[in-house]
Amino acid sequence: MSNIYSDEQLCDLQTGGLFIIQKNKGFKFGIDAVLLSDFAKSQKSKCTLDLCTGTGIVPLLLSDKTNTPKIYGIEIQKDICDMAKRSVTYNNLDERITITEGDVKDAVSMFGKGTFDKITCNPPYTEVGRGIKNSADTLLISRHEILVTLEDIIRITSELLVPQGGFFMVHRPSRIADIMCLMRQYGIEPKTIRFVSPDANKAPNLVLVHGVKNGGKELKFLPNIFVYDTNGEYSSEINKIYNRR
Amino acid sequence: MSNIYSDEQLCDLQTGGLFIIQKNKGFKFGIDAVLLSDFAKSQKSKCTLDLCTGTGIVPLLLSDKTNTPKIYGIEIQKDICDMAKRSVTYNNLDERITITEGDVKDAVSMFGKGTFDKITCNPPYTEVGRGIKNSADTLLISRHEILVTLEDIIRITSELLVPQGGFFMVHRPSRIADIMCLMRQYGIEPKTIRFVSPDANKAPNLVLVHGVKNGGKELKFLPNIFVYDTNGEYSSEINKIYNRR
Repeated sequence: MSNIYSDEQLCDLQTGGLFIIQKNKGFKFGIDAVLLSDFAKSQKSKCTLDLCTGTGIVPLLLSDKTNTPKIYGIEIQKDICDMAKRSVTYNNLDERITITEGDVKDAVSMFGKGTFDKITCNPPYTEVGRGIKNSADTLLISRHEILVTLEDIIRITSELLVPQGGFFMVHRPSRIADIMCLMRQYGIEPKTIRFVSPDANKAPNLVLVHGVKNGGKELKFLPNIFVYDTNGEYSSEINKIYNRR
Repeated sequence: MSNIYSDEQLCDLQTGGLFIIQKNKGFKFGIDAVLLSDFAKSQKSKCTLDLCTGTGIVPLLLSDKTNTPKIYGIEIQKDICDMAKRSVTYNNLDERITITEGDVKDAVSMFGKGTFDKITCNPPYTEVGRGIKNSADTLLISRHEILVTLEDIIRITSELLVPQGGFFMVHRPSRIADIMCLMRQYGIEPKTIRFVSPDANKAPNLVLVHGVKNGGKELKFLPNIFVYDTNGEYSSEINKIYNRR
């Protein structure tokens, strides 16, 4: 069992047994992490790494959605990383999931080049100097490119992946030009794109991107995910992603 | 009046008076040209150029949808170009629209650098060496990058545009990585993206891209256009684009 402190809560991931420890007040995992885990399950993997893992939501969900025997997560913020480690232990997943405290920029020296066949990332979305910064440090680091930039993530991912290894990321559509250009620059060819919109009448506010290291040029689009249907209820696709394997 | 030959037909553009001459058998304008014209009307222009203008559909529609006093079109195929010229004359638009026979690759020497504040393009979609090539030459040239590549178009557009001039293109979503990277490479910053899907359950099969020469980084997405609604009828948006200003 793991300690759960008084400023924390246990959240049921509704997967039939998984729980995650989160702060009562502070950054909580969102739909982006859930959609990323679902998107990333399409590729089989023997060894996956989740960059900027936060409270470990993506490794936890991937342990449920895939048979991947070994999933690593790296998180720079000590207290968040500690929560992730306790969540792994709470779920009796210490053999499959290893959470490491560290800076993504040190990941190549920590894990070695060409170590992973799949890398996932739900990074901070906002470039420094853009948007309004939240005053609480933890939220600031989770949402803004203060400690790691998109270019850092893509460059390091390319070094950590084996050739033909898969990269799965969720981000803002407004960064798609940066994402495409940086992936090409670092030898990860964009292969699948899926946009997520609040509903069919609204512009996409998230994008799921899948690339392959040293992959050939062939980019495929999947139908948009709409979070809500025309009645304002969660769409059947979202219900499927949240509740079923 | 213009001559209309026996292998040609006059098509009503349903704008309240505009017609276009097309071959009975051969390349006909599609929904992509209509969507491009509608997408491109958002920016005011004193002098617009349509690259790969074909039968002149985009200049004709822009003459209806905008107040732009001068619209040029360039087309390399002599017989198609001749049809475009005759359509312009048929619609009494010779003062506003000038169609020029020529190679897009010669457009900078023909028109001069920094001549246009808006450039539109509905280019051949398919890279040479990909997809199945149609045996008829005209169709081949209209659909494949035989005479002009995406890189040619974006490089030449950048030279022809004034600083802050707008570029509007329709293309296949599968080329979005190429489009983003080439636009950045040639100093045209992507500013607006809109995907087009057959319906809400299908992946996008067209993308509308708007960029600004020397523009700052700020990319906005518009809601997808769905061509058909859930009943299989043209969506209200498509009816609006086809029938109203």
